[in-house]
Amino acid sequence: MDLHLTKQIEFIREVDRLKTIFRQSYIMDKSRHENDAEHSWHITLMAWVLQTHTLDREVNLLHVMKMLLIHDLVEIDAGDTFAYDVAGQVGKFERERDAAIRIFGLLPEEQSNEMMSLWLEFEEANTSEACYAVAMDRIQPLLHNYYTQGKAWREHEVTADRVLARIQFLRDNMPGLYQMTEELIHDAVEKGYLLPASL
Amino acid sequence: MDLHLTKQIEFIREVDRLKTIFRQSYIMDKSRHENDAEHSWHITLMAWVLQTHTLDREVNLLHVMKMLLIHDLVEIDAGDTFAYDVAGQVGKFERERDAAIRIFGLLPEEQSNEMMSLWLEFEEANTSEACYAVAMDRIQPLLHNYYTQGKAWREHEVTADRVLARIQFLRDNMPGLYQMTEELIHDAVEKGYLLPASL
Repeated sequence: MDLHLTKQIEFIREVDRLKTIFRQSYIMDKSRHENDAEHSWHITLMAWVLQTHTLDREVNLLHVMKMLLIHDLVEIDAGDTFAYDVAGQVGKFERERDAAIRIFGLLPEEQSNEMMSLWLEFEEANTSEACYAVAMDRIQPLLHNYYTQGKAWREHEVTADRVLARIQFLRDNMPGLYQMTEELIHDAVEKGYLLPASL
Repeated sequence: MDLHLTKQIEFIREVDRLKTIFRQSYIMDKSRHENDAEHSWHITLMAWVLQTHTLDREVNLLHVMKMLLIHDLVEIDAGDTFAYDVAGQVGKFERERDAAIRIFGLLPEEQSNEMMSLWLEFEEANTSEACYAVAMDRIQPLLHNYYTQGKAWREHEVTADRVLARIQFLRDNMPGLYQMTEELIHDAVEKGYLLPASL
């Protein structure tokens, strides 16, 4: 087997572990927590389906999909940090960067560099593609919470103001998605799935 | 919410059920069967990583990824049919086609038509993109079997000739991948993970 292929197969084998990293979100039948591999599939598919809802018409879908397929691989080493876990954010970037170096480093150099660059782009969220990709990563757990009657929100006593704060960046470039998520949040408060804003 | 977005969210919600459709393959730590959503993520990522191994340089990666993200959605209704289950193949296409009509039909018409066309292209496997996509779908469970010491192969008493038959189409356009998988199969027989050819 050529050396490139050997490295690629080792990477493909290693990333299987993403299937064992569980998130706080539940799958929609509420039977269990969702894992990172399923989540990555779901948001990659969402990026395709919702593409017309970004005003940024130049968004490169392949580029977005690549980011979404690998954005959580670092959690194989660094674990999942719940979005509303303030303490968990400390040192998160450094832990994840070390994980990125190890995991992407299993690949041939050119591919390793490409993935590292895409992962950093997603983390920095400054390009149209990264903004849209991050939007998928934020909207999906919101849908999961809404359609499981706020199961993870209630377990963690999350309040509406914090959920709203995380989607503000959708306002300008993705107004339709912003409006939809804002409506779901208000409806979730009304139905008791989500606590109202804290005082 | 506009009607397009309402339909798209309904589709995104419905496809969550792919996370509850289990395959015969085990995840690589052998702790449990793999589900279709994780599998779809894994092979979509594989398509990107292994892209240089198809001699067909014109292969459109975005097109391949789209096929792989949705190729198993029909199993939400039709269930998973094990590759070596001969009886299960009877009527499989019709069951899956009905499922495709229902599930893709949740989307706005243009997207529904695009997915139906991609799903049929994958099933017919006549284009470069579909051949490469099918290759990913065949190689991944082979790797899973190999790295779990043939767990699913042994449970179903699968023989090497049947596994080899399913990868013959790799020979011409993906010789590196063909050689790699052929070597794994021979090694698997040697190690007792896989039964030798039946008489």
